[in-house]
Amino acid sequence: MAEPLLTFEDFAPGEVVEYGDWLVDRDDMLAFAREYDPQPMHLSEEAARESMLGGLIASGWYTIALLMRINCDHMLLHAASLGAPGVESVEWLAPVRAGDRLRVRRTTLATRPSKSRPEMGFVTFVFDVINQDGVVAMRQVNPVMLGRRDRSAA
Amino acid sequence: MAEPLLTFEDFAPGEVVEYGDWLVDRDDMLAFAREYDPQPMHLSEEAARESMLGGLIASGWYTIALLMRINCDHMLLHAASLGAPGVESVEWLAPVRAGDRLRVRRTTLATRPSKSRPEMGFVTFVFDVINQDGVVAMRQVNPVMLGRRDRSAA
Repeated sequence: MAEPLLTFEDFAPGEVVEYGDWLVDRDDMLAFAREYDPQPMHLSEEAARESMLGGLIASGWYTIALLMRINCDHMLLHAASLGAPGVESVEWLAPVRAGDRLRVRRTTLATRPSKSRPEMGFVTFVFDVINQDGVVAMRQVNPVMLGRRDRSAA
Repeated sequence: MAEPLLTFEDFAPGEVVEYGDWLVDRDDMLAFAREYDPQPMHLSEEAARESMLGGLIASGWYTIALLMRINCDHMLLHAASLGAPGVESVEWLAPVRAGDRLRVRRTTLATRPSKSRPEMGFVTFVFDVINQDGVVAMRQVNPVMLGRRDRSAA
């Protein structure tokens, strides 16, 4: 048997955990920018130098995508995830660059059983993406829908 | 001379414009999911059929990335864009599937000159991503920082 999936009941407001050690790959970062955010500051070392950015920076949408990947690896693929209705907020606080090592600090903000779907509940998380210097590069708040362990309890 | 870039002054609250006609490519959609959101419902036709989703659906983060690309093509690459501080909200309202044709309805919500940086201002947009059936699949609200045409005016 596989290990049991994390469910709604496994998350409690106030819990803080850290996970992930993602090396930001320059080629992948540039490939993402070419495909989805082809602005010069994300594509060209020269353009980035001429701006006030101090060199090439990742698209903020790339950082969002990396957060999702880290969350998949360390939480969602081991959880009874039913998707998410949306995102409450994203703040890009510091640049992300090739060679950075990113980890995630996840804080459980709130939990709420679904009224209309007793087999699931909403868990709202704050995700801080933190670089190798301990700087929070991005903060994202979003709810996740998670199945309940004992559906009949609802 | 290239055409003049769109600046802060070119956006007024209440304006609504539509643009884009993006064909959602199945291979690109799957490649994104493998890289950034490898949950079964985004990767496997079979897993998606077994869920209540009625077949394979795009990762919501892929829809976000496509919105950025459409915005680059139709606005940001022709504007004095200085990036964005974050995202105010995202709602995933309907599934996006391979073969969908997506367009963007952009509503200008508010404009505000920057107090600390007189050379720029903030413009907050509502972006609706609409499919070929006229269904709003995603609504995203986010501010963009735009340069001002006459910096000395500020």
